[in-house]
Amino acid sequence: MKGYSAAAIGKFLIALAFITASVFPMDSTTALSMKEGTMKKSLGAKTIVFPTPVFVVGSYDSTGRPDVMVVAWGGICCSKPPCVAVSIREATYTYGNIMARKAFTISIPSEKYIHEADYCGIVSGRTEDKFTATKLTPVKSDLVDAPYVKEFPFVLECTVIKVVPLGLHTMFIGEIKDVKADEAVLGKDGNPDIKKIEPMIFDPVGRAYYGVGGYLGEAFEEGKTIKKKD
Amino acid sequence: MKGYSAAAIGKFLIALAFITASVFPMDSTTALSMKEGTMKKSLGAKTIVFPTPVFVVGSYDSTGRPDVMVVAWGGICCSKPPCVAVSIREATYTYGNIMARKAFTISIPSEKYIHEADYCGIVSGRTEDKFTATKLTPVKSDLVDAPYVKEFPFVLECTVIKVVPLGLHTMFIGEIKDVKADEAVLGKDGNPDIKKIEPMIFDPVGRAYYGVGGYLGEAFEEGKTIKKKD
Repeated sequence: MKGYSAAAIGKFLIALAFITASVFPMDSTTALSMKEGTMKKSLGAKTIVFPTPVFVVGSYDSTGRPDVMVVAWGGICCSKPPCVAVSIREATYTYGNIMARKAFTISIPSEKYIHEADYCGIVSGRTEDKFTATKLTPVKSDLVDAPYVKEFPFVLECTVIKVVPLGLHTMFIGEIKDVKADEAVLGKDGNPDIKKIEPMIFDPVGRAYYGVGGYLGEAFEEGKTIKKKD
Repeated sequence: MKGYSAAAIGKFLIALAFITASVFPMDSTTALSMKEGTMKKSLGAKTIVFPTPVFVVGSYDSTGRPDVMVVAWGGICCSKPPCVAVSIREATYTYGNIMARKAFTISIPSEKYIHEADYCGIVSGRTEDKFTATKLTPVKSDLVDAPYVKEFPFVLECTVIKVVPLGLHTMFIGEIKDVKADEAVLGKDGNPDIKKIEPMIFDPVGRAYYGVGGYLGEAFEEGKTIKKKD
């Protein structure tokens, strides 16, 4: 303590404390929030991803009556052969239909058909004729043993090539035999235009439907800004 | 031709032709447009659905180096046990990583990470260290043998329970061991909020990214307007 009095050291430490407090203003509450801010919170083993689709899956029952259900657990699963997967509970009417006929369709509803599509996810085809109730029109596929929805602008016709039981859900892997779309949703290049189709997005947490938002950028291009830096 | 003259038959046929024309007024042009208006256009057996996700799949290579790739072919496939599927080509670096470690993560990037996410879909982990190039931070999962992306707000940690070879793509079915999310993307109820996460949507036709659009309605509610009519 060469030449410094206890009082001078005391004043210095007090001043240092004030400076420290102003530069790093932190108490136990802010320390906790900082920790929370840098670490992710565990939410448990839940089935949540964003986005999930709104697929209206069409099938015929044993009497040949067309039925539809809504599936959010699904997506494209192979490019060659072109395949799409839909996961369906064994308890559903559709499960038995697809197991028997080994075929299904996926009709993608536009936003304006939110009521009709949602209805197909509320009631069972075992007790209700969903086409009659919704006034939607079943169209027999010319390629697979299943009906699709005339009013929905975009359709996939599939034959089942694999059945994968997983637990509560069974995954049906369908080979896509054809894609069909209304002329009205095709772009100038003849390809389906996502903004004209206006497909819905399902939020499995908020149990809500959303539309497709704004264009963000071109795939396999936006990342080149990073590639060039190397 | 019992009792009918050729003239009478001729007059009858002319009258029949006029009646037919007035009941079914159709020429070649209207026939064509009616066909286009009521029938969907066949686009061939293509891998197109809307929406598809932007999953950034994390894995460790044989040396323990973290890698990420982008997957649009995937989705939730079972509720119990909670499972998610991602389809990956055998040629990718990630394929070998997941086959060896039997684990992967899915990190869902926010819109603002479009460049980093897209970059992960352009280059191969075989020749590039994507974490170094993008300045993203790998975080070792505390539950599975795979890394996730710290900067992306929503993460799934998965162990592979089934491998399904389909052709060009192999489907990895992962049991979701935990879901983790940044505090900043949780809503007041503590659940992940799709509008705070700002996940991207991939359009496989336009090869473009879109955001999540406006709220359209409540699932399992919107359809009740139809149910009540019954």
